[in-house]
Amino acid sequence: MKERVREILSWYGSDNPGSLTSLARMLNHGRLGGTGRMVILPVDQGFEHGPARSFAPNPAGYDPRYHFELGIGAGCNAYAAPLGFLEAGAAEFAGDIPLILKLNDSDSLSKGEPCSALTGSVDEALRLGCVAIGFTIYPASSLRNVMLQELRDLTQEAKRKGLAVVVWSYPRGAGISKEGETAIDVVAYAAQIAAQMGAHVIKVKLPTAHIEQDAAKKVYEKEKIPTATLAERARHVVQSAFGGRRIVIFSGGPAKGKAEILAEVQGLADGGAFGSIMGRNSFQRPRTEAIELLHEVMDIYANV
Amino acid sequence: MKERVREILSWYGSDNPGSLTSLARMLNHGRLGGTGRMVILPVDQGFEHGPARSFAPNPAGYDPRYHFELGIGAGCNAYAAPLGFLEAGAAEFAGDIPLILKLNDSDSLSKGEPCSALTGSVDEALRLGCVAIGFTIYPASSLRNVMLQELRDLTQEAKRKGLAVVVWSYPRGAGISKEGETAIDVVAYAAQIAAQMGAHVIKVKLPTAHIEQDAAKKVYEKEKIPTATLAERARHVVQSAFGGRRIVIFSGGPAKGKAEILAEVQGLADGGAFGSIMGRNSFQRPRTEAIELLHEVMDIYANV
Amino acid sequence: MKERVREILSWYGSDNPGSLTSLARMLNHGRLGGTGRMVILPVDQGFEHGPARSFAPNPAGYDPRYHFELGIGAGCNAYAAPLGFLEAGAAEFAGDIPLILKLNDSDSLSKGEPCSALTGSVDEALRLGCVAIGFTIYPASSLRNVMLQELRDLTQEAKRKGLAVVVWSYPRGAGISKEGETAIDVVAYAAQIAAQMGAHVIKVKLPTAHIEQDAAKKVYEKEKIPTATLAERARHVVQSAFGGRRIVIFSGGPAKGKAEILAEVQGLADGGAFGSIMGRNSFQRPRTEAIELLHEVMDIYANV
Amino acid sequence: MKERVREILSWYGSDNPGSLTSLARMLNHGRLGGTGRMVILPVDQGFEHGPARSFAPNPAGYDPRYHFELGIGAGCNAYAAPLGFLEAGAAEFAGDIPLILKLNDSDSLSKGEPCSALTGSVDEALRLGCVAIGFTIYPASSLRNVMLQELRDLTQEAKRKGLAVVVWSYPRGAGISKEGETAIDVVAYAAQIAAQMGAHVIKVKLPTAHIEQDAAKKVYEKEKIPTATLAERARHVVQSAFGGRRIVIFSGGPAKGKAEILAEVQGLADGGAFGSIMGRNSFQRPRTEAIELLHEVMDIYANV
Amino acid sequence: MKERVREILSWYGSDNPGSLTSLARMLNHGRLGGTGRMVILPVDQGFEHGPARSFAPNPAGYDPRYHFELGIGAGCNAYAAPLGFLEAGAAEFAGDIPLILKLNDSDSLSKGEPCSALTGSVDEALRLGCVAIGFTIYPASSLRNVMLQELRDLTQEAKRKGLAVVVWSYPRGAGISKEGETAIDVVAYAAQIAAQMGAHVIKVKLPTAHIEQDAAKKVYEKEKIPTATLAERARHVVQSAFGGRRIVIFSGGPAKGKAEILAEVQGLADGGAFGSIMGRNSFQRPRTEAIELLHEVMDIYANV
Repeated sequence: MKERVREILSWYGSDNPGSLTSLARMLNHGRLGGTGRMVILPVDQGFEHGPARSFAPNPAGYDPRYHFELGIGAGCNAYAAPLGFLEAGAAEFAGDIPLILKLNDSDSLSKGEPCSALTGSVDEALRLGCVAIGFTIYPASSLRNVMLQELRDLTQEAKRKGLAVVVWSYPRGAGISKEGETAIDVVAYAAQIAAQMGAHVIKVKLPTAHIEQDAAKKVYEKEKIPTATLAERARHVVQSAFGGRRIVIFSGGPAKGKAEILAEVQGLADGGAFGSIMGRNSFQRPRTEAIELLHEVMDIYANV
Repeated sequence: MKERVREILSWYGSDNPGSLTSLARMLNHGRLGGTGRMVILPVDQGFEHGPARSFAPNPAGYDPRYHFELGIGAGCNAYAAPLGFLEAGAAEFAGDIPLILKLNDSDSLSKGEPCSALTGSVDEALRLGCVAIGFTIYPASSLRNVMLQELRDLTQEAKRKGLAVVVWSYPRGAGISKEGETAIDVVAYAAQIAAQMGAHVIKVKLPTAHIEQDAAKKVYEKEKIPTATLAERARHVVQSAFGGRRIVIFSGGPAKGKAEILAEVQGLADGGAFGSIMGRNSFQRPRTEAIELLHEVMDIYANV
Repeated sequence: MKERVREILSWYGSDNPGSLTSLARMLNHGRLGGTGRMVILPVDQGFEHGPARSFAPNPAGYDPRYHFELGIGAGCNAYAAPLGFLEAGAAEFAGDIPLILKLNDSDSLSKGEPCSALTGSVDEALRLGCVAIGFTIYPASSLRNVMLQELRDLTQEAKRKGLAVVVWSYPRGAGISKEGETAIDVVAYAAQIAAQMGAHVIKVKLPTAHIEQDAAKKVYEKEKIPTATLAERARHVVQSAFGGRRIVIFSGGPAKGKAEILAEVQGLADGGAFGSIMGRNSFQRPRTEAIELLHEVMDIYANV
Repeated sequence: MKERVREILSWYGSDNPGSLTSLARMLNHGRLGGTGRMVILPVDQGFEHGPARSFAPNPAGYDPRYHFELGIGAGCNAYAAPLGFLEAGAAEFAGDIPLILKLNDSDSLSKGEPCSALTGSVDEALRLGCVAIGFTIYPASSLRNVMLQELRDLTQEAKRKGLAVVVWSYPRGAGISKEGETAIDVVAYAAQIAAQMGAHVIKVKLPTAHIEQDAAKKVYEKEKIPTATLAERARHVVQSAFGGRRIVIFSGGPAKGKAEILAEVQGLADGGAFGSIMGRNSFQRPRTEAIELLHEVMDIYANV
Repeated sequence: MKERVREILSWYGSDNPGSLTSLARMLNHGRLGGTGRMVILPVDQGFEHGPARSFAPNPAGYDPRYHFELGIGAGCNAYAAPLGFLEAGAAEFAGDIPLILKLNDSDSLSKGEPCSALTGSVDEALRLGCVAIGFTIYPASSLRNVMLQELRDLTQEAKRKGLAVVVWSYPRGAGISKEGETAIDVVAYAAQIAAQMGAHVIKVKLPTAHIEQDAAKKVYEKEKIPTATLAERARHVVQSAFGGRRIVIFSGGPAKGKAEILAEVQGLADGGAFGSIMGRNSFQRPRTEAIELLHEVMDIYANV
């Protein structure tokens, strides 16, 4: 198992030992530690969607400590959240789970072209003992340049200071349709952009079989790129991130039934996904149920 | 042959020895080393056009190491790519081929006036062992000033730190028609702008015989500037970049047949072009075929 | 066991979660992970005593990778070394053992009042993925102020950036006799000074029953401080570092026989020492023998 | 041959691709390019010993261009000199030979404890197109700390900016005798110190069989470290620099006869030295003779 | 004549056009403009020796405007002085004569090892419209490192900002005897050191036939370096500054008779000196006499 982690680290040959160590801490931690697969618990929905929409279904989640305990209890590889949530538990749970500080966040009170606000810094990530920074880009937004330039600066600083970089790459905005946000060509493109920006870990959405861009459609048809099943689509997205030499994980999206989730995860795992990042499907369930589900998800990844 | 490199370097008398050394490393490397001609392999299409459109025709190209190996195997003078692609091979192939870090990139998910996002920095170029930075400007865009001012800052920093500056000068945007993007007057103008901005190496598009600007048309006609053949047009573009005292290379554009490519290159070489920069026509072909083609292209330049 | 680590972390209530996390990484790692006890492998003798004196007895140790493997193989809590030794393995062994970068070092070619040279920095510690910086002070040296002021600056920076601080506190120099360097009053005093300087982990020498300072002697006699056995002396030293609320570990000094080492460690453990730091007694033995010895040492601490 | 260069670069796993590229440029250049061996031309004697003592024997050497031409003509791996000498040819010979900017220098007009003055900077090295900085330390000097701390700062900056670091490690000063400066224990120790400071390339003096330090003597005798022949001594010095995983090259010292030089080089090569750095023995001979000698030296290294 | 200036500028190939322009301004100005020879008027004696010792012999010189007018009237290439003297006339005589701002100065009230105080800055030189900075080093002083490091920093800044660098290189201090300060070996060495530090113009003392250093003596004798006449010694000093490829000018020292001065200048000119820098012998004479003398000196240089 250790060999797989070493192999993955070898893909990042331009990085300092510090960033490699931070990556290794995530890859070696928790129930999937050493397998090269990852399940990350992200809790930024309080910020992004509002507290009631996020935590009312399972009110224990209003308390930031709940999510630390959930991530630790379930044996996740890492826990990602905005500044406030991490500050509220980083001392109490010091060393118990690798932390990812999200450095930008949106809320759903504002309207207009999507572009998250900077809400943290690399130095805050160090202060809180995080192993990585997290950053969201919306590639199809007309504010793309603002976000990419912020990411560029943060990535350079994080790598110099020994942290890993996790990028949420979610095309959204004036450039594409709503349906296009999860189109297979767009999700694959999102993975490529994040990889080119220097991300160590890339988080994308579950891709559908829809193809958004005409120019892409011609190529998918001509080259007969298989996109019928989720496994095929996952495989294409992973391939699109440097031929499988970058860690790509998938988010599950809105809360849904357990069977549906496990079927999706099975598809992802079959397609070579490196793992899942599961927020609402974890913390909106009762704790025991959530841990059970996360363990089943991890078992699927462990047994590929 | 060495004499020609020395002559070319003498045109850049205001530059530090560091930038001259970086230029010399490109001019002296590979199959055309010492001839004063250059063939550069650029691979930014994954970022600019998306992964499937770029790499599906030859899926080996999804893996960033492929392009290092292609550039090295073909004996190109340099390999240019965005941050992620260079990071994925710079350590493994350290010293094997001069590298150009592209500092800005666009994707085709966003719409609106063309203006690439900053995706790298001069310090990253140093960290990765590059000899040059690359930067794209779209002179006819309404965001021209943003790009030129970014270029100004990066050029000053790069020259202070001993790097060379390669500018992709592609007029595009509200100021001109689609056809005008490759019009002879526009391409010549693009070369002049890049030269005036301080570029060491200027990359322009293959010019057509079309003349975009009325004011220019009058002069071309009055002065009887020959633009009928590609050789004539290449000669005019090279002349437009400081009377031939700046290195001007031409991109080939979309993938096409070998015969067509070689005919174009012959025209460019006859017109005094300093070389070609060939992306899709290289990496979208099978490796052996691509190397064969690149060698034939280099032979044309070597035998002018 | 985890409870003990949490208790220890509670003593450092003014520290950022980052430093606590770094401390936790050491306390939770290896064979003694979670016990609140630590055995650290330090290898700075190549720098401090010279290569042959350090590595000729077991020439495998000339190779820096050997010490990473020894520390990992024996299950030490951390491995401490100067810049060069860490650089030579930090990428290859990323994440496999917590690292401490020694920021100052002496060699035995120079003469004069003891004062180590700065040989690393906090930023280098981050770059290499270390959890802590290490720093040596010689409290009885006439250059004390130079060292304490350097430590002050480095401690502040390290704590701001989420690292732990390990201080080697070795009184030496014009202020005391040779015998006094390990006198019980002096060693206890050394522990107090390091604690007052803000150290998280304090490394002192094995104390003898000798009392160096007259003013101290009167008190030790009047207050009947027990110092006859090593356990008593260890207890006094630990007490001297904030009543046992700072981690104090002891070095074993020059290479010696196994029985002698284990007897010493038993005394330390009985006296409440938090652990040992064993360099020459580890890496100058053949690998298997060294690991056996380290395991026996750890077992003593584990079974107190 | 290329394989050997790749193997050597693998020893420096904590370094940026930029520094690896700079190292590769030296290792791949000149007559020994690709062999993993190096012969470097250093010309700092004008500064260190004065102009007449350095250049009167072959007055062509007063002109700084002479040394560029000598290094290029002989096919040396690199040319090392202080600021003024490099400034006087860096533009004219841009790209023709890898350059090392010496960042500190002494002159023989001053007396007192040895400590070179800073005479250049990392940014000057970039401006002049150098691949490395050079720095001299005198470990036995009472000003050791000044020098090591300057080196620490310069090394960190150079590595961040993609340069290699070459350290001249010459114990000298109050701590040792004149004879001790080249004693085997001292030279081996000097190599170890430079390696621990993070040097990529280490330059030491030719070691004699003398042993300077009593504490070392006991170990050399007990462990029966062979030091009778130059090959044995070279082997021990190379081993002392991280078990052979750092590049160690030897200086020849004062001008001497050709036969003597070649015998010395044979001994060094037999002992596994990575090469020689030959100043006075090169540039004080007439040009043709010097090139002949350098070629014979290179042949010895090439044929080990 | 212009050709000679161009030739001289070609020796400084690593310099920015700004520094070359500044050098050219001096070389092209005044009665010797275009000859490649220079006579500079320096007036720092008020600071260095005190006002009465400097100006009482010709009280007009108390007024700073006097020296501007003298330099302009005599057609000197440049006028060099400390901050206060330049501030007192830079506006009034703006553009009338190239100015050199001396950035360090000593006074004769203090005792101890020679080391001038910083009394100006590069930015002040720009503010006052100067073409160059001036800086004094005392190579044989035990404070050598302080001065060389200051010069290093100032030189880098001055060159980046387009100024020329003039170095007064006057060995003095604990390392040599009083007689040694003007010994031929020492003056030649002083010229070499200034050249290695990156000086554009080097000012040294009139050398005597004395040889100070034993190690040098052997070489001067063995190589039969001619030092009997001033012309021979000047030739050797010029050669010692990069084989004649750096501008070396000589100071005349204390006031003396006209015949003596002219004889000295004739010797210098015969030996290939680039010119003279004449302070006390100019401004301590009545104005007309001084101008006459300066003209005769210039005529000698013009007619070599």
